[in-house]
Amino acid sequence: MEVVCLDLEGVLVPEIWIAFAEKTGIEELRLTTRDVPDYDVLMAGRIRILAEHGLKLADIQDVIATIRPLDGAKDFLDELRSLTQVIILSDTFREFASPLMRQLDWPTIFCNSLVVDDDGMITGFTLRQRDGKKKAIEHLKGMGFRTFAAGDSYNDLTMIMSADSGSLFRAPANILQEYPQLHLSTTYDDFLSTIRSFIDG
Amino acid sequence: MEVVCLDLEGVLVPEIWIAFAEKTGIEELRLTTRDVPDYDVLMAGRIRILAEHGLKLADIQDVIATIRPLDGAKDFLDELRSLTQVIILSDTFREFASPLMRQLDWPTIFCNSLVVDDDGMITGFTLRQRDGKKKAIEHLKGMGFRTFAAGDSYNDLTMIMSADSGSLFRAPANILQEYPQLHLSTTYDDFLSTIRSFIDG
Repeated sequence: MEVVCLDLEGVLVPEIWIAFAEKTGIEELRLTTRDVPDYDVLMAGRIRILAEHGLKLADIQDVIATIRPLDGAKDFLDELRSLTQVIILSDTFREFASPLMRQLDWPTIFCNSLVVDDDGMITGFTLRQRDGKKKAIEHLKGMGFRTFAAGDSYNDLTMIMSADSGSLFRAPANILQEYPQLHLSTTYDDFLSTIRSFIDG
Repeated sequence: MEVVCLDLEGVLVPEIWIAFAEKTGIEELRLTTRDVPDYDVLMAGRIRILAEHGLKLADIQDVIATIRPLDGAKDFLDELRSLTQVIILSDTFREFASPLMRQLDWPTIFCNSLVVDDDGMITGFTLRQRDGKKKAIEHLKGMGFRTFAAGDSYNDLTMIMSADSGSLFRAPANILQEYPQLHLSTTYDDFLSTIRSFIDG
């Protein structure tokens, strides 16, 4: 019995904050942890910007609902879900992921959550736990599963290393250079056949 | 962040072996753990009967594909998956569950698996782990989730007791009599509002 754990952004859907910045034209929202290393500072800035633009959670969800999964992602995921169990392990917030999960026919996702006030404004966020991707792999192993993990970012590496097998998917050049030992897929066809080999193994 | 864990048979789909016995007219396949308490003996008998009828896994899956989810189960599950994360925790085999999961749009299911030979005949089975339902709840808690569990049978009780909250769903009279302290839902409407209260709590 095996379970496949996939990162969300960059693997199945675009980077949500960047796509959201493009959709709304709010340039400052393009900042990521590469620009602002302290995640709490980054999120505090994002929440301030949303408040300045009077953007409530519902408005943001409406915009996110117009963002589409990556080309081919839905077919890939449909096929994968017919073969094995899939859990999306993401550092995004479930309230942002929800309009995208709807488009992907509600795969299971383990992520974080937002704090929203009575007026529907975002005021903070709650992590499910520190290093949640890696811990999810460890607990899935504890449930008797063989685990495969894949992602594209620094925050996916401990998950990939902890899993029984894994792969990068369309990772940026700096990660490929630092981790040449990791398998890389850049197309869904190759990605699927890599996972099939793991399942059959 | 919360996760809802549901038993499969009796909650979302009919009892698979009984429905399969009815579809095929093979009366001996109606036996359950109530008739044959030793699960290994029960399964050995089932495997023998399937072999006698020359039923390969693919034949069985074709029959199971004609079994329908319980009335209202799909709508209930669709609504629930739009509200929170759902994992089906079942003691069935993934090869049997698969044709039913397809009809339910591939919710995530943690269950057991069959051993199938090169001719496609079932020769045995593999448990993911002993007491897998309860252990799954414990590991989901370890991932930082609040947990809700529901089912209808004796093998669901440790899962329901281990979870932060839970309910019986259409449980038989003997279980209701032995466990009067457990919440019971008999309709999907009531079941959904019970789970909503848990999510909002």
